[in-house]
Order: sequence, then C-alpha cells, then structure tokens
Amino acid sequence: MNSVFLNGAYLPKDQARISVDDRGFVFGDGIYEVVRIIEGRIFAWGEHAARMARGLDAVRIPFSASDVAGLEAVCNTLIADNDLQSGEATVYFQVSRGAAPRTHYFPPAGTPPTVYAAPSRFTPSRDMREKGVKAITVPDLRWARCDLKTVNLMGAVLARQAAHESGAYEALMIRDGMMMEGAATNAFAVIDGVVRTYPLSNYILPGITRQYVLDAARDVGVPVSEEPVTQAQMFAAPELFIVGTTTDVAPIVLLDGKTVGSGSPGPVTKKVQAAFLARLYGSAAVAH
Amino acid sequence: MNSVFLNGAYLPKDQARISVDDRGFVFGDGIYEVVRIIEGRIFAWGEHAARMARGLDAVRIPFSASDVAGLEAVCNTLIADNDLQSGEATVYFQVSRGAAPRTHYFPPAGTPPTVYAAPSRFTPSRDMREKGVKAITVPDLRWARCDLKTVNLMGAVLARQAAHESGAYEALMIRDGMMMEGAATNAFAVIDGVVRTYPLSNYILPGITRQYVLDAARDVGVPVSEEPVTQAQMFAAPELFIVGTTTDVAPIVLLDGKTVGSGSPGPVTKKVQAAFLARLYGSAAVAH
Repeated sequence: MNSVFLNGAYLPKDQARISVDDRGFVFGDGIYEVVRIIEGRIFAWGEHAARMARGLDAVRIPFSASDVAGLEAVCNTLIADNDLQSGEATVYFQVSRGAAPRTHYFPPAGTPPTVYAAPSRFTPSRDMREKGVKAITVPDLRWARCDLKTVNLMGAVLARQAAHESGAYEALMIRDGMMMEGAATNAFAVIDGVVRTYPLSNYILPGITRQYVLDAARDVGVPVSEEPVTQAQMFAAPELFIVGTTTDVAPIVLLDGKTVGSGSPGPVTKKVQAAFLARLYGSAAVAH
Repeated sequence: MNSVFLNGAYLPKDQARISVDDRGFVFGDGIYEVVRIIEGRIFAWGEHAARMARGLDAVRIPFSASDVAGLEAVCNTLIADNDLQSGEATVYFQVSRGAAPRTHYFPPAGTPPTVYAAPSRFTPSRDMREKGVKAITVPDLRWARCDLKTVNLMGAVLARQAAHESGAYEALMIRDGMMMEGAATNAFAVIDGVVRTYPLSNYILPGITRQYVLDAARDVGVPVSEEPVTQAQMFAAPELFIVGTTTDVAPIVLLDGKTVGSGSPGPVTKKVQAAFLARLYGSAAVAH
C-alpha cells in the first residue's frame, strides 16, 4: 500500500527520492497531469495522455507520445497495488527533464527524464457540488504559456493560498479585465442563459473537464459560447461555476464576498453539473 | 570533495536526495541564489543574502533573514570542504517550501523548508570578456514577478536553449517592445554615450551585478540612466552588454545575426567592464 512509481520502479513513497540536480527541482522544468480513478477505471485517459504528450513535446522533454501511452499500464499497476479498484482516487504524473549539472539550456542528449506517478485516495465533496463554493479574484501574474501544464506553478500557489486564507476554495485569475480561469480549474459564467468560458488560447489550460462540460451542456440543450467574460459581466452574472479533474462542476455562490445570483447554485449550473456527472459516472451518477 | 549541504547535513552530492513531495519539484515553489567565490571569499554576500531574504518573504517561505544570514557559514564550510580557497567558484543556494502532501495552497505550519547549497568550480571566460558574445532576442513569456528569484524558470530555460541552438550565449527578452533583460543576465545598451538599462520593476531581476555595474560606471564618469530601451534603439545601439554573477560584463557583438556597432567590444563597454572587474577583484583585476 502507498506505492508510487519512480523511474521504472514501484516503491513506497517515503523511499521515492530524487536528485537535488533534478531539473524539476531547480528549474520547475517538467510537465504533469492528474487523472481521476473511479472504481478502478481511469477517466478520460486518452485526453489526459494527449495533453501530456503535447506539453512534453512543446517544451521538448524527450518523452514521446508512446512513452506517455505506456503510463496507462503504470497507472493500472498503481491502482491494483494500492487497492484502488473501488471508490475514487487520483493519480498524479510528472515527467521532468531529468538530473544533470545545472545549465539553463537543456542537458546533454541522452539525459533520462525523471518519470514519477503517485496515487491518492480521493473523495469528492458532496457539499461543494450541492452548496457551492466561495471564490476570490486575483490578478493573473502567470506567464504567457498557461496552456502548458508545467510545474512552474508559483502563480497558482500564491493565488490558491490567498483564496485559502479568505476561506475560499478557488482564486479566479483576471488578466486585462477578463476572467481567465481558476488557479487549478477552468471558470464559467452563465450570461443571458448562455454558458460562457474563455476560448482556448495560450493564456488558459485546455481543461479536459472543461471540454467534457462544454459537450455535456450542448447535449442537454444548454447553449455554450467560448467567449471572454469581462470582470463586470462576471460580477453581474446570475451563475458562475468552476470545473476540473477533482472539482467536477462546482457552483460559485460567493465571489469576493458578494453573493452570486441568489446565493445558491443556479438552474443552469445544476443542469450542466448533472449532465457532466452522468458522463463521469455513467448512469450511476445519482448514487454518487 | 564535492560535498553539498542539504537540510543541516554535509554530504556527497550523489547522496543528496529530496522527496518527490518536495514543493520545489512539484510546484517550483522555491527561491534560489548564486554567489561568486574568489580566492575563497564570497563576493557581495550581503546583497545576495538581502535579495534572497526579500524573495523568501515575498512568497512567504518561512526562512527568515537571520536564517539566510546563517547560510554564510554554510557557504564558508563548503568552500573549505571542497578546497575552493584559491581560484574561483560559485555556490548555488535554494530554499523550497519543503515536502508535504500536494496542495496548491501552503503546507501545514511547521513544515520545514528544504535548504540546499552546492559549490561548483568556476573559471570565467577570458574570450567572453575580450571578444564578446552573440545574443538573440525572444519574446518575454515570463510571469509578472521576474523580480523574484524563484525556480519557476521554464521561460528562461526555453529562451537559453533557443540561444544555445543558434550558437549564442544569451537570449534577450522583449516585452511590449522593450529590452527587459537576458534569460540569466541584466542587459544594457550604450545610447548617445549613456549606459541605459531597464529600471527596477516587477519585470526584471534586481541584479547584484547590475547594481555594481551602475555604481562602477558612475564612478569612472560614464553617465547611466535606468530607462527602458526600445527594440529599435537596441538594434541601433553602437554597444550592448550583459551582466551577471557568472557573466561579469560581457559585450554583445552580434544580435540576431546582425553586427553590433563595429562588431568588437566598444569603448564604453570596455571602460565599464574594467571598472566593474576592479571592484570584483580589487586591485588585482589585471591579473585575471
């Protein structure tokens, strides 16, 4: 129990140690993913693997799409070894550019990437789904490649800490007067009955849950639009919600201390949430 | 020989290993410094320590100014243990927010920071000083707190790699049409006889060498101005140079394949370089 995967070996987490020369440690030079495990099955593996392969390729860490595909078996071994065939869990994956004497430019060809995967037991919060969450707004200080899931996460860390300290779950990033996304979620507003979210660009993460939510909303007849939401529209919106791999669809009921809409999850959010959860859990959604 | 410092212990580098849960590894959640060692003496320790303490405070890693002050003794032990009392060396310091189960917000109070220091033998490049270097320009993709020396360095890594692949030493970052700084140096232009560099702000590192160079230039009667240089001014400037802890003052003689000025280090750069090296080495400058 509590075994993780590191560079080809399965071992207890407290024995999983990396070099101080790892470029993940000294440069944040790595790409990560988090997948959701439900009753021992990986949700949306194909989408997560494709995003991870694209990120590794974009920053040129030599770990190919077929190497990433090989992590599915690693994930399944971790699920089995850690007794995660029932209930829910997450598995965290990270591939860094490996350990080498410190130079900003890439290490010598042949330097093996560091490959790490670790499972955690996970229980989704019924309260968060049903009662909603508080959020705050913060300036988006992050870099111009937020579409890449790198471990350069200081901006997200500081934003989430600000949220945490004000009793909120999430910090929504404002860039050039627009609602971009949460520190670890994508953000949506309901405006004139239309579910709106920032379009795919270099400034937001192409969230897997984001895409599932857009598809699920369309399927149940809720109009969607990938169009920026201004800060003013955000505060005037009757409904706001955030989505992510461990957040699912969470209504925002309080933003910077101001009530959103009626102060309870709104009808469009609930409809989209139900449609998404049906996809996540299959027809057993109601039971969760 | 080749001992490093990790969390209170001195040990061979290949035995210095950190947890996969280290926030340096999974979030780039750490602050670093690099100091120059000349004949066993730390150059500008006070300035480096002050900047490191300021950075740790800004991101709220609980490692105080007096904790940072304690690293001077660590540095001196590393110098002695690694036979670095003569010649030159660098010592790298990094303090991360420690190892804890992964949450974006800060780990529980009492989580000890990870404290790491490692020396390397260093030989400054006479060629770089005397003949100058090539540089390229790249868009500045980095976040809005480049004044903090965090290990969120993916932007610098990719920029330096681009430079490396084109046979250049440094990549100069362009933001909003302005020359900001190099990926790991501060950048200067000589315009109408005035040495110009971007003013201190959240967008550039407050370089220790940058400050020494400004002071040294003033001392030898070279006018300086902390004022942005446009991309057009940059390409028209008769002299460009970069400065840093391991770069000293390096003339740029080729920018994006175009000759800078005469293609050789210019008179103002040489004068400033000599003035800086005199401060770095004291009166023995000529010998180096």
